[in-house]
Amino acid sequence: MKKVFIILAALTLTVSAFAQQALWGGPNTESPVINPDGTVTFRYRAPKAVKVQVTGDFLPTQKLEVEFGGNKMSYDAPGVADLVEKEGGVWEYTTPFVVAPEMYTYTMIVDGNSVIDNNNVFVNRDIASLTSVLLVPKVGERSDLYAIHRVPHGTVSKVWYPSKTAGFDRRLTVYTPAGYEENTKTKYPVLYVLHGIGGDEDAWVTQGRATQILDNLIARGEAKPMIVVFTNGNISQEAAPLENSTGYTRPTMQLPQTMEGTFETSFPEVVKFIDSRYRTIARKDSRAICGLSMGGFHTLYVTLNNPDMFGWSGMFSAAIGTGSEQTAAHKEIYENFDGKLATYFSKKPKLLWIGIGSTDFLIQSNNEFRAKLDANKYPYTYMETDGGHIWRNWRIYLSEFVPKLFK
Amino acid sequence: MKKVFIILAALTLTVSAFAQQALWGGPNTESPVINPDGTVTFRYRAPKAVKVQVTGDFLPTQKLEVEFGGNKMSYDAPGVADLVEKEGGVWEYTTPFVVAPEMYTYTMIVDGNSVIDNNNVFVNRDIASLTSVLLVPKVGERSDLYAIHRVPHGTVSKVWYPSKTAGFDRRLTVYTPAGYEENTKTKYPVLYVLHGIGGDEDAWVTQGRATQILDNLIARGEAKPMIVVFTNGNISQEAAPLENSTGYTRPTMQLPQTMEGTFETSFPEVVKFIDSRYRTIARKDSRAICGLSMGGFHTLYVTLNNPDMFGWSGMFSAAIGTGSEQTAAHKEIYENFDGKLATYFSKKPKLLWIGIGSTDFLIQSNNEFRAKLDANKYPYTYMETDGGHIWRNWRIYLSEFVPKLFK
Repeated sequence: MKKVFIILAALTLTVSAFAQQALWGGPNTESPVINPDGTVTFRYRAPKAVKVQVTGDFLPTQKLEVEFGGNKMSYDAPGVADLVEKEGGVWEYTTPFVVAPEMYTYTMIVDGNSVIDNNNVFVNRDIASLTSVLLVPKVGERSDLYAIHRVPHGTVSKVWYPSKTAGFDRRLTVYTPAGYEENTKTKYPVLYVLHGIGGDEDAWVTQGRATQILDNLIARGEAKPMIVVFTNGNISQEAAPLENSTGYTRPTMQLPQTMEGTFETSFPEVVKFIDSRYRTIARKDSRAICGLSMGGFHTLYVTLNNPDMFGWSGMFSAAIGTGSEQTAAHKEIYENFDGKLATYFSKKPKLLWIGIGSTDFLIQSNNEFRAKLDANKYPYTYMETDGGHIWRNWRIYLSEFVPKLFK
Repeated sequence: MKKVFIILAALTLTVSAFAQQALWGGPNTESPVINPDGTVTFRYRAPKAVKVQVTGDFLPTQKLEVEFGGNKMSYDAPGVADLVEKEGGVWEYTTPFVVAPEMYTYTMIVDGNSVIDNNNVFVNRDIASLTSVLLVPKVGERSDLYAIHRVPHGTVSKVWYPSKTAGFDRRLTVYTPAGYEENTKTKYPVLYVLHGIGGDEDAWVTQGRATQILDNLIARGEAKPMIVVFTNGNISQEAAPLENSTGYTRPTMQLPQTMEGTFETSFPEVVKFIDSRYRTIARKDSRAICGLSMGGFHTLYVTLNNPDMFGWSGMFSAAIGTGSEQTAAHKEIYENFDGKLATYFSKKPKLLWIGIGSTDFLIQSNNEFRAKLDANKYPYTYMETDGGHIWRNWRIYLSEFVPKLFK
């Protein structure tokens, strides 16, 4: 029977010049390979290349300087390692260290040109860039939350809601926990999860591994079963690229209507839709919101402008203090900040949670915000992690925030 | 305000060596670009490359020969075009012809190494290969069905069902049409859609554009609102790669338990699950099944072994006549073929639909099957299109089959 399959496979392949490559076009290069000793080997076939490198967040960071608008800025960039050419034009690099359990992204640099690892079909899109994915899970480590296990899985749906603010239908990603469909009398609390600038309703599910984190935390009994809603924070957009009617548009970070109040103004229509469509516990104590970067900024202002809506709020590397409030289309969202803060805390929210990396470029503005909270004796929970404005941290914050909710 | 965004964008980018590339690392190459005159320009930056080519199904096919198992086989392969090096190490190719409206896949060949277009974030995975996507929609043309329009959208869900056959939970993609959630008393017919060898429950939604085809046909009034279920035909697998607990496994075409009866045997448990979970019209006249290649083979045998289950069956480039039946684990699925065929037709099914490309390597076995139907005066509908065993044809067949259902 195996022969039959191989022949069928071969026949199928003949009509695809792409898939054919693997069978007849040079060695079937395997990359990345997690070795038994915990190191990782990367391979890339490029017979005529002069230099092949790999860069990714599994490598130690390097300090780089960049000039922007006349100013020099120093920042931590992922390290770069050289591959060495072996037989058949295949270049190879094995880490001289054990790669710690984590989910990483990386790209190859072939003669200065950044490309994904074409042996690895696991690809993430971050705004307009593609990166290859390396997941090193390990039982007992946090990264195990990012892997899929044989536990009950929630349903992940792409759902469209009618947006009065936008004037068209917009797409959400909605997670309903395992058992939602069977337990038809049970109502569930809801967590809204917001992405960063340039992201969309897919970001937390792909790079954030949010639905895996939820499945695993719920299966372990460490989080309550909950509905989770991933919004698209670009109100001028229907949905993620290639999922909207504008067609073939290259994703961009500089979308209109992202941090000028329109999204925050429109948020109650999302909550109303979710409460009408799903079996939710439609009250403050059973409603949470969190977001990363721009989504942390959105979280803060959606919370403050709707002080009776969210009992639990999480700001992950929040992009506050950027000044975008000053020229907003909906100034009212950002006005009277101190007064709104006082009102919010007077209503005794269950949790304000703040997380940020120690080298995040936004740590100063977050520190200033915390100083204001401290001065007013407003309670909050704070977590500071290593590293900067990166997905590794946002996955950590989500997996810390979620177990605290609705308890 | 624009300035604020740019600065925030720049700051965010500094922490990502990947995204940074677009702003500071050489020209921001745009590719592909659909030009106003209907030609398409492809660009690829590779300053040190000797030769850069593009290959894809938008180019005229070429005849190629391949030796396999001692036999020489001739086949139609996608054409290849050379890019020309321009300023800044950017290579470029503009088609000398108008690219007809269609959805295409293509890859770059850089010094013999097949890579995706790293300027294009729209990527499909086909088994273990990644290809870049070029969608050229045009109003009035069939490809317009593959684009997203401002019409009511169905919900697309990833749903896990308990498989007794497999012994673990398995993932389905389920499309519920617009209005399903609001019209809580309405019951819907169901179409099951099966993928080819090496595919999974994602294939029809990504490469097949099936949910766009459904949304658009239903919005035009050309198809009945229906639930559509996309199964995973590899019974040994929980779900698509990186969505299953086996972790970091490279996708392969040669999966066990694909064409030896186990999947066909297990199919009723999928139908039972869907009928219990969704508001279906749970009877033969309101139940349809179709599939491409291996999925066409599955369609035939699931239909014949359950003659009271499906009123409508569609075989798209069906992989029949490969001989896999002879060594099956569940021989009973393939035995007494003529008798099962007679029983099936004696129960007067609504539609048996067969579609295949004129240069498909499976056309002979399909012709033999049709000769048998003709000899017995068994009714069926047949469509023959240009080209071979390719996704372009399967999108055409789906958009022809769906409007005929449940009427």
